Amino acid sequence: MKITLLISCIDQKGIISKVTDFIHQKEGNITYLDQYVERDKKKFFMRLECEFNKTHFELMPFKNNFKKNISDIFNFSFNIFDNNTKKKMAIFVSKYEHCLYDILSRYKSGELNIEIPFIISNHIELKIISNLFEIPFYHIPHSKKNKDQAQNFQIKLLNKYKIDFIVLARYMQIIGKKITNQYQNNIINIHHSFLPAFAGAKPYHSAFERGVKVIGATSHYVVNELDAGPIIEQSTRRVSHLNSIEDLINKGKDLEKIVLSRAIKIHTQNKVLVSNNKTIIFS
Amino acid sequence: MKITLLISCIDQKGIISKVTDFIHQKEGNITYLDQYVERDKKKFFMRLECEFNKTHFELMPFKNNFKKNISDIFNFSFNIFDNNTKKKMAIFVSKYEHCLYDILSRYKSGELNIEIPFIISNHIELKIISNLFEIPFYHIPHSKKNKDQAQNFQIKLLNKYKIDFIVLARYMQIIGKKITNQYQNNIINIHHSFLPAFAGAKPYHSAFERGVKVIGATSHYVVNELDAGPIIEQSTRRVSHLNSIEDLINKGKDLEKIVLSRAIKIHTQNKVLVSNNKTIIFS
Amino acid sequence: MKITLLISCIDQKGIISKVTDFIHQKEGNITYLDQYVERDKKKFFMRLECEFNKTHFELMPFKNNFKKNISDIFNFSFNIFDNNTKKKMAIFVSKYEHCLYDILSRYKSGELNIEIPFIISNHIELKIISNLFEIPFYHIPHSKKNKDQAQNFQIKLLNKYKIDFIVLARYMQIIGKKITNQYQNNIINIHHSFLPAFAGAKPYHSAFERGVKVIGATSHYVVNELDAGPIIEQSTRRVSHLNSIEDLINKGKDLEKIVLSRAIKIHTQNKVLVSNNKTIIFS
Amino acid sequence: MKITLLISCIDQKGIISKVTDFIHQKEGNITYLDQYVERDKKKFFMRLECEFNKTHFELMPFKNNFKKNISDIFNFSFNIFDNNTKKKMAIFVSKYEHCLYDILSRYKSGELNIEIPFIISNHIELKIISNLFEIPFYHIPHSKKNKDQAQNFQIKLLNKYKIDFIVLARYMQIIGKKITNQYQNNIINIHHSFLPAFAGAKPYHSAFERGVKVIGATSHYVVNELDAGPIIEQSTRRVSHLNSIEDLINKGKDLEKIVLSRAIKIHTQNKVLVSNNKTIIFS
Repeated sequence: MKITLLISCIDQKGIISKVTDFIHQKEGNITYLDQYVERDKKKFFMRLECEFNKTHFELMPFKNNFKKNISDIFNFSFNIFDNNTKKKMAIFVSKYEHCLYDILSRYKSGELNIEIPFIISNHIELKIISNLFEIPFYHIPHSKKNKDQAQNFQIKLLNKYKIDFIVLARYMQIIGKKITNQYQNNIINIHHSFLPAFAGAKPYHSAFERGVKVIGATSHYVVNELDAGPIIEQSTRRVSHLNSIEDLINKGKDLEKIVLSRAIKIHTQNKVLVSNNKTIIFS
Repeated sequence: MKITLLISCIDQKGIISKVTDFIHQKEGNITYLDQYVERDKKKFFMRLECEFNKTHFELMPFKNNFKKNISDIFNFSFNIFDNNTKKKMAIFVSKYEHCLYDILSRYKSGELNIEIPFIISNHIELKIISNLFEIPFYHIPHSKKNKDQAQNFQIKLLNKYKIDFIVLARYMQIIGKKITNQYQNNIINIHHSFLPAFAGAKPYHSAFERGVKVIGATSHYVVNELDAGPIIEQSTRRVSHLNSIEDLINKGKDLEKIVLSRAIKIHTQNKVLVSNNKTIIFS
Repeated sequence: MKITLLISCIDQKGIISKVTDFIHQKEGNITYLDQYVERDKKKFFMRLECEFNKTHFELMPFKNNFKKNISDIFNFSFNIFDNNTKKKMAIFVSKYEHCLYDILSRYKSGELNIEIPFIISNHIELKIISNLFEIPFYHIPHSKKNKDQAQNFQIKLLNKYKIDFIVLARYMQIIGKKITNQYQNNIINIHHSFLPAFAGAKPYHSAFERGVKVIGATSHYVVNELDAGPIIEQSTRRVSHLNSIEDLINKGKDLEKIVLSRAIKIHTQNKVLVSNNKTIIFS
Repeated sequence: MKITLLISCIDQKGIISKVTDFIHQKEGNITYLDQYVERDKKKFFMRLECEFNKTHFELMPFKNNFKKNISDIFNFSFNIFDNNTKKKMAIFVSKYEHCLYDILSRYKSGELNIEIPFIISNHIELKIISNLFEIPFYHIPHSKKNKDQAQNFQIKLLNKYKIDFIVLARYMQIIGKKITNQYQNNIINIHHSFLPAFAGAKPYHSAFERGVKVIGATSHYVVNELDAGPIIEQSTRRVSHLNSIEDLINKGKDLEKIVLSRAIKIHTQNKVLVSNNKTIIFS
């Protein structure tokens, strides 16, 4: 059995030694260890993968034991994941299909270690793609009037299917606060610019107006402030005066889908910790 | 003899044909032609290089002839450059040496087709580098009180040495309006972020705070609004949570010097036209 | 009506002027013109787009007229394309699905100006994807014995559907000489390395063995020599010692699909000329 | 006092725990720890930085103690570096100045934690740059006849100044075997292509001939086989058909100098381990 352990705490002497000792005693074999110290904030972060002989190992007792003997003493927060458990991911889309196609084709190919119980959209257009890939599709239209009702329906679905995290694959709508609160650091958005430049609506139009020589895409966790959450991944690409707004939109699509899929992958591999609105991405 | 011709005008039928006809008649051999049409603004831009048999060719009569027979008829603005004439470039620096070293070592190697009559700085620290490369150095300190006086001294030098364009190699000071007006689209600045993100002071500190995964540098022509001029060149580079502010500053230096030197090169080769606060960069 | 004109010939004075004159006389409006001179070979290449008032314009007489009055005199080869005509593209695949998904999702989204009459594969695995996207799928197994027979069946299909060009979306098989001869500069392959490094089989294994810090992908036109044809597009991405062969393969997939799709797009837009086993890619 | 510890050994349970325990007992504070397991070779690599209270700490006893109590038991090879000690670096050059300028300007700026006791060249041309930066310059011409004599003179200088590592800043000559043997994994070369493509002489000419769309540079440790040593760093840049060989050479210079300087920096920070002709680069 293989597990991943994520730890955050105040920086202090001897943590690594205690944790690796503990795993050693439990006859675990550490196959990966990476740690990071935020010097100015005096915070310590660690990610560790280890293997146990399956017949001897049970997750819950290990967790309790670890909590009692290690984490309570050093006063740190931790998370343990079974590497074989697939996370449940919900996709929210609007009308743009490129990110959805990219995610679903990776999913079908077995590239992503996830389950996708459903897709939600405020429009009907992409139902045809859900059908292609045989994923249930919920059309939940959004208007000023039915906002709360729509959110409640979304929450009902999220809870019913025990969704672990949400991907906004160019959803183009603000997510309700109840959901952002419930899914802190578990909603991944793709924004079509290199944030913090061109936050908000129509970034390619703004990029064209400004005459930039580089466009970008940014995937980040959603917080209540628009496009202001912790950045998971970014990438950029050269453009020139020859490119119309239409060209920027098309070139950008390739960036968006790649950047979003990278962020999904990193997230599913439990490689992200968030501290102070910034991400620590373990390698 | 080799010349470069830059043209801007309202888009209209037959311009290319008329211009190439004209050069053909003058026994010029076109070695490069590129044009660009800004569709929404209905504007036409062209860059053309051609060779003439040296014994038959004189620049002034050609220019006058071109104006009378072509540009006046089509109502366009144009510029003709002798490719062998070196532009005169002034460098303004403050305390950072990386861009200055990069420019001067390229200059010494003959990579840049320019003359550098002098370097101006508000600090004395980089005089030692000017000395190394045997370029006259003028130390013109800057304070709120002597601002106008300093500007006047700068202008005097610029005029005396018939400076064609100015490079702000991390100058860190606002250039006086008299100078920006006299040198429109002829002052090249390097800003240490991918504009429009992180305009103004301390961009690496802001980038660190925001937790971006990519940093950048931007070279642009200086206009009166800070960091808002037409962008000539941009480049970006990946960073991670592992990088301190100090690391960002150091990694950024490499971007800055390369981006600035590319902009200088493009400018000296007469490959830039400015329209509507955006650059057209011919290849 | 909008057309694209591609020209190659010996470099000589006055070509641009003659061609643009001709189009001007036919009341065409040039919306794009780019040319390139291969100095050492003394060859001239030009790409030109122009619009004609639809009611006045017919393609065949224009072509004949152009041939008689221009191209025969200057002795150049040319090609004229109607920008609204969709090229017919055949896809050859084997067992890898990432490039196929990428092409078909772009096709469905209307991003590519093509028709896809069919997909050919030597394996049956990807039939399910053809079905998803409702493209006819021909399973043509390949063995040493039936090689000629297989090729003949392929040719029959290519001719029957009047295929303009072929895309090898990780086909993993050598294309028969009859086909490569018939489709010169019209078969696009994606090779999973930055050629000329790691030509042939298992490039990611070789890249891993060599310990490179960058991997790449290359799309090129197929010639009879393996992986030696004119390169259309290349891209690279950083890797590190942390990446296993499996990781390189997965990271490479993203490069492959993007690079191949870019090459397809450039090709369909008639932006490529081939000279001396190298491509000229107009912007 | 701050030290860096580099370890390589057969992968086995409990190493990290034992090492961190040991440092903990010696009242060291671990500020960085990264490890890597080469699964297929069953080899373990670790890099660790830690701080000690200066008054209590001496390097030699610590080393001996570590050897006796840890490394002898686990049977691993290790290296301990005092982070404040500057490595002594010799530069070998030929006629190209861009890398030399780049290294020396970083050196003068204090960006590199090194001493440069001398520069060796088989040509006299770059003596002027050595003079600029006040570094002793040894002109050691190279011919078939005096090869051994030249090497002996080089070795004499290397030994006299206790040189730690050598940088070939476009040296263009084969290094003698005595030197490569003495300085295993301590001679850094810059090759002007993305290896393994275009090894050997004139890579830009070959790149031009092949019509690649990307050029690159590679820094690697020198082994006896030409351009075949462990790769430290690589980078690439887009080029097009518009670029002449001359252009490739010039664009390449920027890659070369940046890639070489990055490799030098990584090396001086003791972030490189070599295993099986590949590098492990700690972050």
